[in-house]
Amino acid sequence: MSWHNQSESLEVLPNFLEENLLDDRTTGLQLDAFNPQLFRKNVEVVVSKLEEYLADSSIRGIELINPYKLLQQAKEIMNAPNKTWGSGEQEKLEAIIDLYLKTGIAIHSPGYMGRQFSGVIPLAGIIDLVNSTINQPSSFYEAAQLPNVVEEIMAHELNQFIGWEPGTFAMVTTSGGSLGTLTALLAARNDKFPQLWSQGFSALEGQGRPAIAVGDAHYSISRAAGILGIGEEQIVRLPLNEKKQICLEKVRPTLEAAAQKGLNVFAMVASTGTTTMAAFDPIEQLADIAQEKNIWLHVDGCHGASLLVCDQLRHKLKGIEKVDSFVWDAHKTMFVPGVCTLLFYKNKEKSYGAFHQDASYVFEKQPDVYTQFDRAQQNFECTKRPLIMNLWVTWSIYGRKLFADKLEYLCQLTKEAYGILEQEKDFETVHDPEMNILCFRYCPSNFDEKAWPEFQVMIRNRLKEEGTFFISKVNVNGKACLRVVFMNHKIEMDHFQLLLREIRKIGQEIIQNV
Amino acid sequence: MSWHNQSESLEVLPNFLEENLLDDRTTGLQLDAFNPQLFRKNVEVVVSKLEEYLADSSIRGIELINPYKLLQQAKEIMNAPNKTWGSGEQEKLEAIIDLYLKTGIAIHSPGYMGRQFSGVIPLAGIIDLVNSTINQPSSFYEAAQLPNVVEEIMAHELNQFIGWEPGTFAMVTTSGGSLGTLTALLAARNDKFPQLWSQGFSALEGQGRPAIAVGDAHYSISRAAGILGIGEEQIVRLPLNEKKQICLEKVRPTLEAAAQKGLNVFAMVASTGTTTMAAFDPIEQLADIAQEKNIWLHVDGCHGASLLVCDQLRHKLKGIEKVDSFVWDAHKTMFVPGVCTLLFYKNKEKSYGAFHQDASYVFEKQPDVYTQFDRAQQNFECTKRPLIMNLWVTWSIYGRKLFADKLEYLCQLTKEAYGILEQEKDFETVHDPEMNILCFRYCPSNFDEKAWPEFQVMIRNRLKEEGTFFISKVNVNGKACLRVVFMNHKIEMDHFQLLLREIRKIGQEIIQNV
Repeated sequence: MSWHNQSESLEVLPNFLEENLLDDRTTGLQLDAFNPQLFRKNVEVVVSKLEEYLADSSIRGIELINPYKLLQQAKEIMNAPNKTWGSGEQEKLEAIIDLYLKTGIAIHSPGYMGRQFSGVIPLAGIIDLVNSTINQPSSFYEAAQLPNVVEEIMAHELNQFIGWEPGTFAMVTTSGGSLGTLTALLAARNDKFPQLWSQGFSALEGQGRPAIAVGDAHYSISRAAGILGIGEEQIVRLPLNEKKQICLEKVRPTLEAAAQKGLNVFAMVASTGTTTMAAFDPIEQLADIAQEKNIWLHVDGCHGASLLVCDQLRHKLKGIEKVDSFVWDAHKTMFVPGVCTLLFYKNKEKSYGAFHQDASYVFEKQPDVYTQFDRAQQNFECTKRPLIMNLWVTWSIYGRKLFADKLEYLCQLTKEAYGILEQEKDFETVHDPEMNILCFRYCPSNFDEKAWPEFQVMIRNRLKEEGTFFISKVNVNGKACLRVVFMNHKIEMDHFQLLLREIRKIGQEIIQNV
Repeated sequence: MSWHNQSESLEVLPNFLEENLLDDRTTGLQLDAFNPQLFRKNVEVVVSKLEEYLADSSIRGIELINPYKLLQQAKEIMNAPNKTWGSGEQEKLEAIIDLYLKTGIAIHSPGYMGRQFSGVIPLAGIIDLVNSTINQPSSFYEAAQLPNVVEEIMAHELNQFIGWEPGTFAMVTTSGGSLGTLTALLAARNDKFPQLWSQGFSALEGQGRPAIAVGDAHYSISRAAGILGIGEEQIVRLPLNEKKQICLEKVRPTLEAAAQKGLNVFAMVASTGTTTMAAFDPIEQLADIAQEKNIWLHVDGCHGASLLVCDQLRHKLKGIEKVDSFVWDAHKTMFVPGVCTLLFYKNKEKSYGAFHQDASYVFEKQPDVYTQFDRAQQNFECTKRPLIMNLWVTWSIYGRKLFADKLEYLCQLTKEAYGILEQEKDFETVHDPEMNILCFRYCPSNFDEKAWPEFQVMIRNRLKEEGTFFISKVNVNGKACLRVVFMNHKIEMDHFQLLLREIRKIGQEIIQNV
């Protein structure tokens, strides 16, 4: 640190400023929007609304509005006559926030059971006010010093539950699970075909088609194959067992059959858990096969990797220390706002393999103590939000227990909901849930699947329209199912019972009305 | 809208709840972190700090701290003994915010002249508190109704300055300029080689190598070539003139020479303006060439597309309506927090060509009035922050004038700074600035470039260490230059004069000490 010349330099400043600047500090521009007093006034408007919103414990799903009608409402607010600068602003802001809160999915309500985005920890939202006001992009240490060291800290905190040797692994934050997976698959592709980055695919002509083997994969994996030039047709589907896990006995034969067709499987993607129903693939055994066959094993742990922080549930990720890379969406089951994706690499060196570049305005040719904390060579983004801060601050203040407690509660709730469905004759379960996603069907005796192939979807849509519960739907074995995702600890078993009651009511109405 | 059954359903609810739920609403979990009263307490801590931060008009750059020392400090705060739930929390939060503010680049200070990220409009930061507390991912209409219609509104607002026929173009928001450019190049690649997405590059064997022609391009373009399987070697560099614009007369010969080498140039990337020095390529004429040769013209307007909103400066983007796609980073010169990238397509249909997929849990097979507003088929992200909200709210409340005024002021300031440098014998200018980026060198008479090739970089690093000004450096014609980026309207000419004084002082110290 060379602060030795600072004192002299700073001593000179005040005099210079007094003489040259202080009497002429206004630019004459109408930029009152930057006035700090206004900041507090506007925060007050927003916080009052949000406090009320968070305190509302009513059972709500979503008020789905015709988009053209909503567009008209939003335009009217926007085009309302301009008031003088700095006054009238709060009224317009209030109208906007009201509309925004009213039309959103009520993620903090027990009626929200439909998707994988969190009922966030409120403090994590507050940290985004700081992130966005001080605006420090975190791909470079000098622009975001604290976020960059905090990434190191969180990497080591979370590695307690993985068990890698310090210094040998890497954790990179990135903007979403799809980007995390793309980055990992790129690292894998470049590792197995190093000439491809600079020469392009023509370097591989005549050497077989690179391919990726997957289980029940999120749509972003197949997209990644399209993006990376591999081609969606080079996705090799590994057979699944009845639990929708990759069927271990069929992995080697499937890989061998692929090789015979001229496919060069360089990466395998497993999930913990799958998006459809949170099934957990047997990653320990898959890692052994991958090692034997020199295949990069990537695990999509976007939804389920959080179970690592739970003493009672960690076993579902047994073998995670053997995989080459995995992604973990803290914005799903670590309950921070979208997005905060953690991409882990077993081998730190390989984390630098995803991208190669040279740009004098950002990349230092001679790394120093500062630039060795830069992330831009490991993450896709040039400007990246300081994603880690929301997670680190909540982790620092509330500790592991908050996350573990909430997760254990949600998983237990799901098990119990499954137990209830097993007792109900008019409901059909699809799987014994492993985490906090539960798929099922309403199949009353007066319902004939052949006559009503869209019955479950109709129920789901009507439920959504009624606005009390928000659930989703999914296809399992080609048949539409109802799907609940418990992301909110305010949900209790009675809410689930109430949901079943609503499903029955709606289902019977549909049957009777057609 | 089918709200017809709602009243009956909702009438039944209260009784059911009273009987079944209200006496048993606690889960017994220690999840006080979700308490709404705590929310206000924590907001108060953060807002007091931020208000003070925004009001500080001192000249500051960055206090660069040894990362290992900072890591220690952050760890100490994290590991401070846990207090009881809900008390003590504010003290820890205060310590974290203090450290965060102290170690960040002072983007709201006139000392910040170094990078392209904004001194944000404070209201835009406040909107992120809402975005992150209510957490509505905006790739799907049902999850984020207002953000999705607001994208339509902003598309039409901004199209006032482009001039496309309503209904024929598309605007997609995405997480950063690099992702925006990757998406556009993917749309271009899939448009020219439609078989590639599913079959992969083996479909093109023997048909010539796909290639991208670029001017002075951001590093993400060359990365995109690596990612998409094209290969960095298939980047064709278009010669630049002395202003670092693409040299029009050399475009056709360069493309023809590339074709003779077996390259199939399917896309051309121009910039408005370049990252190095905000040079503006002649996009109107390039669009004519691109059309003639059936090449997709993409424009990287991340930094400079904002000039579209300025009556006096819009002419620099003449011809923008002729390009196939362009990106515009609102988190740069529209002064909202990172990130908010707007990707525009001249042809709406083509915006659906970047990605192809099928996933039952998200994509509806039968589009309805709601799902036609979904964005997931056009944007890379599955979970995407409601990026547009920060821009739309500030635009709604402050109008175009705020953005235009600030931009015009910053560009004028840059012109004047250039004028000053032209008068100073010990400074060397590198270009006549077109926007708010100015590159120059300190070349006093007692300085010998051959003896001090790293002189400019040494000055820049010492300046950074002194902590009063934060500027950047860049290579122009292979020689290091100093670079200022004026992103903050609080910067006045006197601040620039003060910067020059500091540069002289530091430069002379370096010369004398070696």
